[in-house]
Amino acid sequence: MAAQAKLLSLPLTDVRRMADAIRVLAVDAVEKAKSGHPGMPMGMADAATVLFSKFLKYDAADPHWADRDRFVLSAGHGSMLLYAWLHLSGHAGIEMSDLQSFRQLHSVAAGHPEYGEHPAIETTTGPLGQGLANAVGMALAERHLAARFGRSLVDHRTWVIAGDGCLMEGISHEAASIAGHFGLSKLTVLWDDNGICIDGDVGMTSSDDVLKRFQSYGWAVKRVDGHDPIAVEKAMEGAVRSRKPTLIACRTIIGFAAPTKAGTAGSHGSPLGSKEAEATKQALGWTSAPFEVPEDIKANWEAAGRRSAGARRSWLKRLANHPQKSEFERAISGKLPEAWHEASASFRQKIAEDKPKAATRVSSQKALEVLVPAIPEMIGGSADLTGSNNTNVKGVPVLSPANFAGRYIHWGIREHGMAAAMNGMALHGGLIPYGGTFLVFADYMRPSLRLAALMKIRAIHVLTHDSIGLGEDGPTHQPVETLASLRAIPNLCVFRPADAMETAECWELAVQRSDGPSILALSRQGLPALRDEAGENRCARGGYVLAEAGGKRAATIVATGSEVHLAVAAREALEAEGIPTAVVSLPCWELFSLQDEGYRLATLGDAPRIGVEAGLGFGWERWLGADATFIGMTGFGASAPAEDLFQHFGITVEAVIAAVRRKLA
Amino acid sequence: MAAQAKLLSLPLTDVRRMADAIRVLAVDAVEKAKSGHPGMPMGMADAATVLFSKFLKYDAADPHWADRDRFVLSAGHGSMLLYAWLHLSGHAGIEMSDLQSFRQLHSVAAGHPEYGEHPAIETTTGPLGQGLANAVGMALAERHLAARFGRSLVDHRTWVIAGDGCLMEGISHEAASIAGHFGLSKLTVLWDDNGICIDGDVGMTSSDDVLKRFQSYGWAVKRVDGHDPIAVEKAMEGAVRSRKPTLIACRTIIGFAAPTKAGTAGSHGSPLGSKEAEATKQALGWTSAPFEVPEDIKANWEAAGRRSAGARRSWLKRLANHPQKSEFERAISGKLPEAWHEASASFRQKIAEDKPKAATRVSSQKALEVLVPAIPEMIGGSADLTGSNNTNVKGVPVLSPANFAGRYIHWGIREHGMAAAMNGMALHGGLIPYGGTFLVFADYMRPSLRLAALMKIRAIHVLTHDSIGLGEDGPTHQPVETLASLRAIPNLCVFRPADAMETAECWELAVQRSDGPSILALSRQGLPALRDEAGENRCARGGYVLAEAGGKRAATIVATGSEVHLAVAAREALEAEGIPTAVVSLPCWELFSLQDEGYRLATLGDAPRIGVEAGLGFGWERWLGADATFIGMTGFGASAPAEDLFQHFGITVEAVIAAVRRKLA
Repeated sequence: MAAQAKLLSLPLTDVRRMADAIRVLAVDAVEKAKSGHPGMPMGMADAATVLFSKFLKYDAADPHWADRDRFVLSAGHGSMLLYAWLHLSGHAGIEMSDLQSFRQLHSVAAGHPEYGEHPAIETTTGPLGQGLANAVGMALAERHLAARFGRSLVDHRTWVIAGDGCLMEGISHEAASIAGHFGLSKLTVLWDDNGICIDGDVGMTSSDDVLKRFQSYGWAVKRVDGHDPIAVEKAMEGAVRSRKPTLIACRTIIGFAAPTKAGTAGSHGSPLGSKEAEATKQALGWTSAPFEVPEDIKANWEAAGRRSAGARRSWLKRLANHPQKSEFERAISGKLPEAWHEASASFRQKIAEDKPKAATRVSSQKALEVLVPAIPEMIGGSADLTGSNNTNVKGVPVLSPANFAGRYIHWGIREHGMAAAMNGMALHGGLIPYGGTFLVFADYMRPSLRLAALMKIRAIHVLTHDSIGLGEDGPTHQPVETLASLRAIPNLCVFRPADAMETAECWELAVQRSDGPSILALSRQGLPALRDEAGENRCARGGYVLAEAGGKRAATIVATGSEVHLAVAAREALEAEGIPTAVVSLPCWELFSLQDEGYRLATLGDAPRIGVEAGLGFGWERWLGADATFIGMTGFGASAPAEDLFQHFGITVEAVIAAVRRKLA
Repeated sequence: MAAQAKLLSLPLTDVRRMADAIRVLAVDAVEKAKSGHPGMPMGMADAATVLFSKFLKYDAADPHWADRDRFVLSAGHGSMLLYAWLHLSGHAGIEMSDLQSFRQLHSVAAGHPEYGEHPAIETTTGPLGQGLANAVGMALAERHLAARFGRSLVDHRTWVIAGDGCLMEGISHEAASIAGHFGLSKLTVLWDDNGICIDGDVGMTSSDDVLKRFQSYGWAVKRVDGHDPIAVEKAMEGAVRSRKPTLIACRTIIGFAAPTKAGTAGSHGSPLGSKEAEATKQALGWTSAPFEVPEDIKANWEAAGRRSAGARRSWLKRLANHPQKSEFERAISGKLPEAWHEASASFRQKIAEDKPKAATRVSSQKALEVLVPAIPEMIGGSADLTGSNNTNVKGVPVLSPANFAGRYIHWGIREHGMAAAMNGMALHGGLIPYGGTFLVFADYMRPSLRLAALMKIRAIHVLTHDSIGLGEDGPTHQPVETLASLRAIPNLCVFRPADAMETAECWELAVQRSDGPSILALSRQGLPALRDEAGENRCARGGYVLAEAGGKRAATIVATGSEVHLAVAAREALEAEGIPTAVVSLPCWELFSLQDEGYRLATLGDAPRIGVEAGLGFGWERWLGADATFIGMTGFGASAPAEDLFQHFGITVEAVIAAVRRKLA
């Protein structure tokens, strides 16, 4: 049989038993946890076995290997497929006992794959479509790094298992379109085409011709019987040869082999039940006890896990002799280059001297002009607002299908796809992605922002036009609740710098922050310089006294971003009236919250506090108290020139002065 | 010329001059405002003129006419096209002076079309892709209402102008797929296929075969020269005949007729400049002064605006004689039927007697079983989580291509498309849409939630699995910041009921709330009944004293939703210890904020306050003070059984008791 020679020289019956091991472990783990999703692992086990035992380049002995193929389980609810494979193929750190504690507190085997729980989990999935879009970013990262370091160091593929849900989500359109545009031929998506969604048959909600859709994006497509290993193998061989990204529709039966539940939504998201589980094993001819795998099957899986060990050793040799060895290792490790900080420090010194009056989006661009050349792993872009976001840097080439060495990406009007692909680039390693859109459109990419925060990865978002200060475009484009909604996300640093100096400082912090995403909320409108010293990075503590009161503090004005200069002007008038007033700049709440209470109290002071921000007051009570005096917005904005809006909504120096006077009266 | 007979019996030169009037007004208004987007109206004026003068069924004398065709400018930045048409065609309330105050404070002619500014503005657009998805909801609403009231009352089309941005956004995939699945043949999208996005040529960011993509959704497609009125006319005739939704790709030149900027991104988003504006007019042969339109052109436009006056009069006659006249008028007006409140009141009486212990998602389903039969304009659905969201009602048929009279929609895994289509249904009139998904996936539809709040429309979201109480699915599925992020949106009522009674009350409030969207955040897990009286709707004030202290209040525990019963249990223990403790239930912050200060203070009391909610404390200081004692989450959740998680994160009766004791110590 030709088939035998093809799949690890194993008879197909052995291959099938390898797949059955995944199926049965999924059934057992879900049964024991009394919750989970057996249907997908049972359906996709055959195709996954072909992938893991013949195509995916990985060495179970070293999941950190930089040139490994990336595997993304976009249909994250089928997590047991991933865990079963990792365990069976011999990865350390995921034992049978971990599978037995599937979905229990502190288990590596969480309900959905969680990045950080095990090094071979490439990304956190579960929110549908995200993994697919991460994978596009990973594949793009591969092409870029291959262009930078050469194919002797970087030459791997990205494989995805996606479900109907992933493909129905809007993000799949953005991601697939990006992949098609860039011709990411080393990206292959296995679509678990089982025809079932939670509410029932997919046909009840969708009449898409999915293959035709992916063809319209410039993908190669193929439909196969997902339970026929040879057919799957042929399709994967085609994908490897293809000069386009490839979608392989694997026709499968969800809950394969479950006598009554196979092919139905009933096998999707809950245990089969002990009877059905037993009957399934019987149907498969599986006689081992729960959580037991016959030795020959385990041995075949471990052989699969060692399959690329030789390739890894060769790669290590190539790396050892590579002229860019240390630079490659540095970039992959996420450590910044030596010289960057010096460059940034002298840039800040220059700002202290020049005191430029500029919109913070422009100051951000100036900072990028220093950082991007100094940090070669920074890779920028914008969701079709380059000229507004000021995210590009002169002389930095565009990344295009013709030039993957480029470092600037025109993401198109695809905020969600951009953010998720940026996550994928950060997860891949070797890159620090940053991308721009308007602050209000953070809403379009919020699921990906949340995942970046959850995964603790370094993705930086340049979100300009950060208040009614954007003017005429009106309330649809004016964030009012957006700062609050982002500050609410754990582990996301929202920076809102007040001038050129703070912008440079916040950029430093964002770039240095290797354990979470950052947002820079930047003004459209010009802002005066407020700082003329450049020693310590004062934004590093999240908030600081920008101007101390002339005497014992009678009041403290706390402000952020484009409203800090209003606070400074108000302070001057109040001081002249004999009201000693301090101004606190609070560019990053997240960092300020991390300071010790002593520092926070000393900064905010015990005099009455007045907050100023051209957004809603939601959340400001944390700094101002429940009887907060807050100058800002109380609802949506309006369409008018910016100056008119600040007047109309009463966010002015006069209003701040009056509020302080009222507070002290 | 056959053409003359076809377009309002006008020579094509006159038709062209009608289009030029739109172009020139757009140029003049943007020039005067010193900001705006002239390129799109200049490019699409020809196609739009064909639409507005021959196909769109409307009567400028009555923009409220219920059976008018809907026109949605999804590419909302081209707002001057809309305003110019409305003015030229003779709509009251949008005068030349309004165009002259384009983008100024209080102008009808805001930067982007704002729903509510003028009755002929069907929806607020600007955030790309939203209008297209609204239109899908409108077209679906039309089919449903036609099935309910007959085609003699409901028989109209929905027309959209969309740009490249709309089609690149992920939401376009969800919306187009829904339209294709339901075969919404009366929906036609004119795609302004100008090949230009803000960063430059579309080809720089996208290689999609858009027509093929829409064919994959089951749409009819056609490509035409967008500057050839006869070709556009033929394509629209084809669309009217088609049994599928239709995409007409109008090949256009952005900034048409601007000598140097036409065909470039330079004409997209800023004034042409006085010289180029002059040269444009010269190129068009336009000799009138700014904001002046020759009388013959204005007369032709006004004739277009009167074109369907006869059809409207016939319709009014049909309505007058229609057996369902008053019911139709009631539904369209948004007024609830007489009997609904009685039904709901007796349902609440039953809850008071039965005191059911149930998850609030289950209690919600019980409420729906009363409301949906009583309020025929309620139309439900879920983004493929029907069994989890409990959004369906027994006996209510599914809305399908075969049965548009159905009242339950399987939206598929398309949260964003669902929310935007729900907005479109509410905007259409005659329907109160509600839809379900998990609370954490509110992030996927946030741009549409924001627009519903901005537009003040009644769309109700049933968001279940509202905390770590969902258990094993883990942090990707557990909202922690989501409540805060939604409460931050102005004019959005976030209801988090504590038991069956509160759930019924919150449903009443959501249904009654005709000037804004509502969210019901509901538990997965079972909850005890806390209320046994059913008179007044106590949730109507947003918060209330659920249990008063046994003596002078020593402490007040403020809680929401699934944590209120913890507060009640803690109170009992504390009272037994001799610590008089009150429990305040705070199901809706938005409504509570609207109460007078006296009520709020009386409710919250002046004793120390302790907050309890299985989410982050962000925003809670508003009710608790800056030194808030809050029992809740401090970061993301984890994967484990729910009871383990509440223990692990310390959200327990014991923790509440301990917190009160500490606070009083």
